[in-house]
Amino acid sequence: MNYFSSNFKLGILGGGQLGKMLLNDTRKFDIYTSVLDASNDAPCKIASNEFHLGDLMDYNTVYNFGKHVDVLTIEIENVNVDALEALEKEGIKVHPGSKTLRTIQNKAKQKLFYTDNNLPTAPFSRFAYTSEIKDAIDNGGLKLPFVWKSAQFGYDGTGVKIVKTIDDLDGLPNVECIAETLVPFKNELSVIVARSASGETTTFPVVEMEFHPEANQVEYVICPARIPETVAKKAEQVALETSKAFNHVGLLAVEMFQTKDDAILINEVAPRPHNSGHHTIESSYTSQFEQHLRAILGLPLGRTASKLGGVMVNLVGAEGYTGNVVYQNIEAILKMEGVTPHIYGKKQTRPFRKMGHVTIVNADLSEARRIAEEVKNTIKVISE
Amino acid sequence: MNYFSSNFKLGILGGGQLGKMLLNDTRKFDIYTSVLDASNDAPCKIASNEFHLGDLMDYNTVYNFGKHVDVLTIEIENVNVDALEALEKEGIKVHPGSKTLRTIQNKAKQKLFYTDNNLPTAPFSRFAYTSEIKDAIDNGGLKLPFVWKSAQFGYDGTGVKIVKTIDDLDGLPNVECIAETLVPFKNELSVIVARSASGETTTFPVVEMEFHPEANQVEYVICPARIPETVAKKAEQVALETSKAFNHVGLLAVEMFQTKDDAILINEVAPRPHNSGHHTIESSYTSQFEQHLRAILGLPLGRTASKLGGVMVNLVGAEGYTGNVVYQNIEAILKMEGVTPHIYGKKQTRPFRKMGHVTIVNADLSEARRIAEEVKNTIKVISE
Repeated sequence: MNYFSSNFKLGILGGGQLGKMLLNDTRKFDIYTSVLDASNDAPCKIASNEFHLGDLMDYNTVYNFGKHVDVLTIEIENVNVDALEALEKEGIKVHPGSKTLRTIQNKAKQKLFYTDNNLPTAPFSRFAYTSEIKDAIDNGGLKLPFVWKSAQFGYDGTGVKIVKTIDDLDGLPNVECIAETLVPFKNELSVIVARSASGETTTFPVVEMEFHPEANQVEYVICPARIPETVAKKAEQVALETSKAFNHVGLLAVEMFQTKDDAILINEVAPRPHNSGHHTIESSYTSQFEQHLRAILGLPLGRTASKLGGVMVNLVGAEGYTGNVVYQNIEAILKMEGVTPHIYGKKQTRPFRKMGHVTIVNADLSEARRIAEEVKNTIKVISE
Repeated sequence: MNYFSSNFKLGILGGGQLGKMLLNDTRKFDIYTSVLDASNDAPCKIASNEFHLGDLMDYNTVYNFGKHVDVLTIEIENVNVDALEALEKEGIKVHPGSKTLRTIQNKAKQKLFYTDNNLPTAPFSRFAYTSEIKDAIDNGGLKLPFVWKSAQFGYDGTGVKIVKTIDDLDGLPNVECIAETLVPFKNELSVIVARSASGETTTFPVVEMEFHPEANQVEYVICPARIPETVAKKAEQVALETSKAFNHVGLLAVEMFQTKDDAILINEVAPRPHNSGHHTIESSYTSQFEQHLRAILGLPLGRTASKLGGVMVNLVGAEGYTGNVVYQNIEAILKMEGVTPHIYGKKQTRPFRKMGHVTIVNADLSEARRIAEEVKNTIKVISE
């Protein structure tokens, strides 16, 4: 199929910031793109060739949207998978596939998939309801502390809680969940694997995710991770095996823990462009977005080496501000060397909402990290 | 003014490939952008917040469009300058300004501007009509050979002819024109200067434009130019002085000749993003498009250093093909290292039409140049 001429149509489920950045590359390659999203204010409303309003969880909406495209991809996992399965049966290329999404959408299934495929992950117990956890503790089947995770629809720190005492269970929703052994770790790492429809595979360099000490959100993504080469190789290997086990097509971001004794354990995966790869727009020969596009269209994959060291800072809504967004001091960060802000175009801010990110590139990674901290301390996402 | 919030509106006159690439950056910064172009198939039709159809040379169309924006810029010089002047008087920020555009639109005026401002350029004679040239030759006022240039609306090799014998004048339009001394040169160079509303100035590294030996079109742009440091410094200095003489705001691409004895002579300027800066998207800390945006909005200018060596290859329609475009062998070039094609999204190809460009980046510039030649010999812009 000739993607670069007329008659080809790419569909994207979801019109948020990941879609918006992907659209830069569909524009660059002039690939006709149609987007489905529930919000008329979605960042993808412009720059897509077609924009359709609709509920991503509704079978008919997703099915009818998908019927009119040649290749269908996602920028958010929470979509109607039954519709995707029906579309696959009718010959629409759906990447990632319905089977992968079904496994990933449920954290209990996702964890079972790792153990079934001999992929390293922290030990866990599965519960149909949170209320069953107390019994398990009482009868000695589960030990404190552990990490409680809702099986479904966890996203960016919601649906996850560290349980140190029985009382920490209070207030948790009574839903299907897992209790995961709390593994002491040195670093959180991520590797983004691209696997094309033809089976060609590449990995982006291992990155390190520095978390905010209090808030459960990534503060800095650092590329390459400041870890020994042997650990990096191990992380890449695990990521590649994971992608292969899913028989995945497109990007798979594999988040991992580097334990105190340098073992690698898979935390979770995202079958799409990922926050841990945003720096690639400026720092890599090929951005993660272009690579996703190449992979799902079965085009040759691009070079994943870095041009320079890269650090990414998330721009989230400051606490105490809700309303029309203002990027305080953005002009000050534009003065700093090698700094590129990406503003997602969401009109309303609220505490911790992802409003944008900033990439800092520099031949000297520690200088990039220093400037990143300056960026973090300067710009503030507030409201009018 | 807060560009990053609502209520601000940037206007762009022209909706071609330069505007399209600029829109990547207005999207990145979430700057509300309105585009005026005469064609409903303009590459800027999507990715702009508003797209208006209209004639760029019509006073009322340009005036009415400009009245509704805060800052107005161009991506093509051939616009109604009287309308820009009226808008300036009403307080709209127009960058580049009407005075600069009026000078640049007419090649005779442009040449006079250089001599009036002691800026180096090849000697020339000015003629109200091409028909006057024969007399000048006959009475010894003009010597063969020379370069004939139409004063108005020359673009990409049209409106320019090397006149070696009297017969070469046959068939030239009888219009206002100049006859320029044919200066033997080693290289054609270009420097893109950015000057912001606040007077802050940067230059991108000097590039070398390799021309096709027969067609009068740039074949490769090479960054940095393979010239001695002293020549590069001189070219940068001339470019900076030119930008200052125009009191320019925004990008000014200054095309120059490096003569056999290493003098620098200005050929012509373009007051906007330019073909000789496309490689900056991939090779520079800041792309020319982002820099133009920073300059016209009065934001701090970005770093213009190169991340890597960069070579740009223009993708023009192959001779003998007119119709629905096909990018033959594009998949083959996607396999090559550090290769990024940019497809402008014009549906119809014709001989020599600019349909896209390809950037090749590499830490080793001569390797980038080698791959660029491979790209050039592989991809072909044909029709269905």
